[in-house]
Amino acid sequence: MDDPVTRTEPYGYSLPLSPTGAAAMVTPPPWHFSGEVVMVEYRADPDAVARHLPPGLEPGPDAGAAAAVWAQWQWCSDSGDELEAPERCQFAEFLILLACQHRGVPVVRCPYAWVDSAVSLVRGWIQGMPKQFGEINQTRAVPAGRAGPPMSGAGTFNGVASVFGQRIARGAVHTRTEHGDPPPLFALPLVHSRLFPGWVPGEEPVTGLVASQVTDVTFTGLRSGPADLWLTDDPAFADLGSLAPREVGTGTVFSYGETLVGGRCLA
Amino acid sequence: MDDPVTRTEPYGYSLPLSPTGAAAMVTPPPWHFSGEVVMVEYRADPDAVARHLPPGLEPGPDAGAAAAVWAQWQWCSDSGDELEAPERCQFAEFLILLACQHRGVPVVRCPYAWVDSAVSLVRGWIQGMPKQFGEINQTRAVPAGRAGPPMSGAGTFNGVASVFGQRIARGAVHTRTEHGDPPPLFALPLVHSRLFPGWVPGEEPVTGLVASQVTDVTFTGLRSGPADLWLTDDPAFADLGSLAPREVGTGTVFSYGETLVGGRCLA
Amino acid sequence: MDDPVTRTEPYGYSLPLSPTGAAAMVTPPPWHFSGEVVMVEYRADPDAVARHLPPGLEPGPDAGAAAAVWAQWQWCSDSGDELEAPERCQFAEFLILLACQHRGVPVVRCPYAWVDSAVSLVRGWIQGMPKQFGEINQTRAVPAGRAGPPMSGAGTFNGVASVFGQRIARGAVHTRTEHGDPPPLFALPLVHSRLFPGWVPGEEPVTGLVASQVTDVTFTGLRSGPADLWLTDDPAFADLGSLAPREVGTGTVFSYGETLVGGRCLA
Amino acid sequence: MDDPVTRTEPYGYSLPLSPTGAAAMVTPPPWHFSGEVVMVEYRADPDAVARHLPPGLEPGPDAGAAAAVWAQWQWCSDSGDELEAPERCQFAEFLILLACQHRGVPVVRCPYAWVDSAVSLVRGWIQGMPKQFGEINQTRAVPAGRAGPPMSGAGTFNGVASVFGQRIARGAVHTRTEHGDPPPLFALPLVHSRLFPGWVPGEEPVTGLVASQVTDVTFTGLRSGPADLWLTDDPAFADLGSLAPREVGTGTVFSYGETLVGGRCLA
Repeated sequence: MDDPVTRTEPYGYSLPLSPTGAAAMVTPPPWHFSGEVVMVEYRADPDAVARHLPPGLEPGPDAGAAAAVWAQWQWCSDSGDELEAPERCQFAEFLILLACQHRGVPVVRCPYAWVDSAVSLVRGWIQGMPKQFGEINQTRAVPAGRAGPPMSGAGTFNGVASVFGQRIARGAVHTRTEHGDPPPLFALPLVHSRLFPGWVPGEEPVTGLVASQVTDVTFTGLRSGPADLWLTDDPAFADLGSLAPREVGTGTVFSYGETLVGGRCLA
Repeated sequence: MDDPVTRTEPYGYSLPLSPTGAAAMVTPPPWHFSGEVVMVEYRADPDAVARHLPPGLEPGPDAGAAAAVWAQWQWCSDSGDELEAPERCQFAEFLILLACQHRGVPVVRCPYAWVDSAVSLVRGWIQGMPKQFGEINQTRAVPAGRAGPPMSGAGTFNGVASVFGQRIARGAVHTRTEHGDPPPLFALPLVHSRLFPGWVPGEEPVTGLVASQVTDVTFTGLRSGPADLWLTDDPAFADLGSLAPREVGTGTVFSYGETLVGGRCLA
Repeated sequence: MDDPVTRTEPYGYSLPLSPTGAAAMVTPPPWHFSGEVVMVEYRADPDAVARHLPPGLEPGPDAGAAAAVWAQWQWCSDSGDELEAPERCQFAEFLILLACQHRGVPVVRCPYAWVDSAVSLVRGWIQGMPKQFGEINQTRAVPAGRAGPPMSGAGTFNGVASVFGQRIARGAVHTRTEHGDPPPLFALPLVHSRLFPGWVPGEEPVTGLVASQVTDVTFTGLRSGPADLWLTDDPAFADLGSLAPREVGTGTVFSYGETLVGGRCLA
Repeated sequence: MDDPVTRTEPYGYSLPLSPTGAAAMVTPPPWHFSGEVVMVEYRADPDAVARHLPPGLEPGPDAGAAAAVWAQWQWCSDSGDELEAPERCQFAEFLILLACQHRGVPVVRCPYAWVDSAVSLVRGWIQGMPKQFGEINQTRAVPAGRAGPPMSGAGTFNGVASVFGQRIARGAVHTRTEHGDPPPLFALPLVHSRLFPGWVPGEEPVTGLVASQVTDVTFTGLRSGPADLWLTDDPAFADLGSLAPREVGTGTVFSYGETLVGGRCLA
């Protein structure tokens, strides 16, 4: 890492501000991501999907199209420094994706996401991605031995997610074929609502609709097949539950890489 | 809890926005807190303290006065709903406090804080409190048996904090006397730097110096005595390490209650 | 701590054996415990209780009497060394207790227990206590502020337990009165089945029925009132679920101390 | 899974015993394992190694040969049921291996091991493997994107391990070449000391020297190169620290599969 520079007043891309800036919890973009993904496409209640879209986004022609996604990530800043610290550069994620459009252009909305890393969570909020904390696990393919699906061909990949000790999602993908087309809901731009809540009495929150800008997108090792999906019907998670599957579609597993460079305002 | 109201567009005090607003990770203030505190007053390098003060804050007459604080909290919104969910309403915290002043008025700066709850972390960022994620433990007084200090009188209370598997702080308070004066650094207003980092290229971050507004402050069961304190000297935590103790003062343990109602701009 | 003695062959009360013996995960008894307890007495299906009793134990006159217990513990060896390390000496526990008798003498059986500390878990297995790993939380009484029940009088104490991200138990005690009688199921001797499974082909497991021997038992701060209790009906936990409440009785919260000195064979 | 059979007395391979036997924490062997391994060979103080060998094992011709191993595992019973539950079938491990011999035959001793799963920990104790609880992380190779080493060729794999919030080990392997020879210390039989500590006063512990019996061993994707290794010198971990590297040798990363079928007595 470059030696940090001590200034007379604390600074940093994010809190905490510090004399060298090196204490900042979140590094400035770009950030590079490499992930193993287990994804289940499904159909939710179109009305529930519509209620999850903010002004500026509208349902597309395929109203109700949705996906549940599990991913195991490694990430790093442009310096690559974090890769030397596996305790920092890894996290697991579970998220819901909804098909929609912005001024007629297909985009994707992520209404809910959970991660097991606080750095990832806060970085998400800077982008407008509504990450919360959860326990997320998914099957790993294995090159050797019998304790997992093989690296290619047929196999079963499971995913689970829990929040505060309650299971909120379970899914499975039973791969049958290897193919080359990335799932559209994973390949389209994400549109988030940035929100910095008010704190001083009378203060309006800072808000804004933004599209994430990514480069160097890579999909590899795509395998697909029939899938299973369950979302919680516990009243404590009623908003999430309103997006439960009415019909479960194709599941896909793949490896994915991207560089997230910033946001673009959709005023 | 009041039944949430479903709207046609997602809303909430914080992300995630949802049709009922009930999915928001953070509830709007006020928030009520009850905590058990282990606090060690100490003297840091006055220059290092000064480098941790943002424009608007300056060292006070007692330059270098600082404290390390461990606390076990329960919290709830005004409804009290969270108290029914002990898995949600409890967290542990370790923080550093620095004596300083704003326009000649004594205040306190918290340059670093760690908690073991993501909700607490994000709520901190809304206020400008630079909370990060850590493992924090402290001794509990025990009414029965031999496995801990008694509820009153002499006893030893230890605190530890770790980040990503590295110990960053250790402290101990050896209570000798019971007395009634709260430690000044815990009783003065906290002044934070709110920061919402820029995301869209060219965007300036949202910033602001704010004082936390609290009501219904209660201290009880104060006990004090000599103390020990160690902060990490690992280069990976150099900014924190620059605030290591040059002299360790009095330690105090106490129970504390407050209601946090919002922020006041210090323009 | 006494300086450990280096020997020419590794030794210790438990694994890992080491040259100084100091690496042993579990220290030899006695162990001292101080705990805060939330306990709900209830009635289970007497047949299900009977199926949980090993040869040597039989249902008592009050067949079906049971209890669910949450506890937050601190513990230490006779030296008290562990108290200096709050990250080591604290754990949370949830357990089920069943009334029964041994040769006509009232005793208690613990068919299931969960803790959040591996040292506690392994120490349990040495005694025959069937501890597994879980997430356990319970309400803490607060001397100051509004975020919890008061230290005495009326208040609500909640408990939850989860295993691998699934909720297995929820309970609540609504204290109404302060009184002096410890719940019988907490005061009677525990009778465990020690079991060291076979590993070499054809090897019989080491087994034995033992009663735990405790001294210096202290109950204090007893409060009781009506209670709630729910145990999971998920088929994955069918054995636990067979002990679900048919009727919920009194709840009690209290502070407790004991010294656990060893076991007594019930041949 | 086969439907469990309810008996009139509780049973199981391990605690907890239950009417159907399905509550047992540990399933009976065989167990299948698939792992990703990061391994650093090194030389420790031969005297310290000798002090870690129990009667029956003696230093071999290459006294002081040792290894530090990080592994990410999936496992399952013969039924494969656990693979449907990624929250149960995955764990991380860090362990130390020492070259030695039994009656002149080369074997390996594992004096210390840490895992992040209680099931794995208890299963280890049944075999005599001295597993404790820790936080363990290691780099994952990535098929896509820039956030990690590639699936083949040159790359850096890091490992860290922490116990109770203190870092105990760090290592790195910088792969340079792909080759086919498994590291001998990983391929030789492990010899463990089974130990069930005494609990009833005067009781002798159950002990025994056993060799682990494995079948279906597979190594694949071997890559090696120079390596780094650090073990803690904190006095709290003095026994582990006595095995710190005097010289660091080759590092290897590989995928590994085995079936663990039981133990063989070395009387």
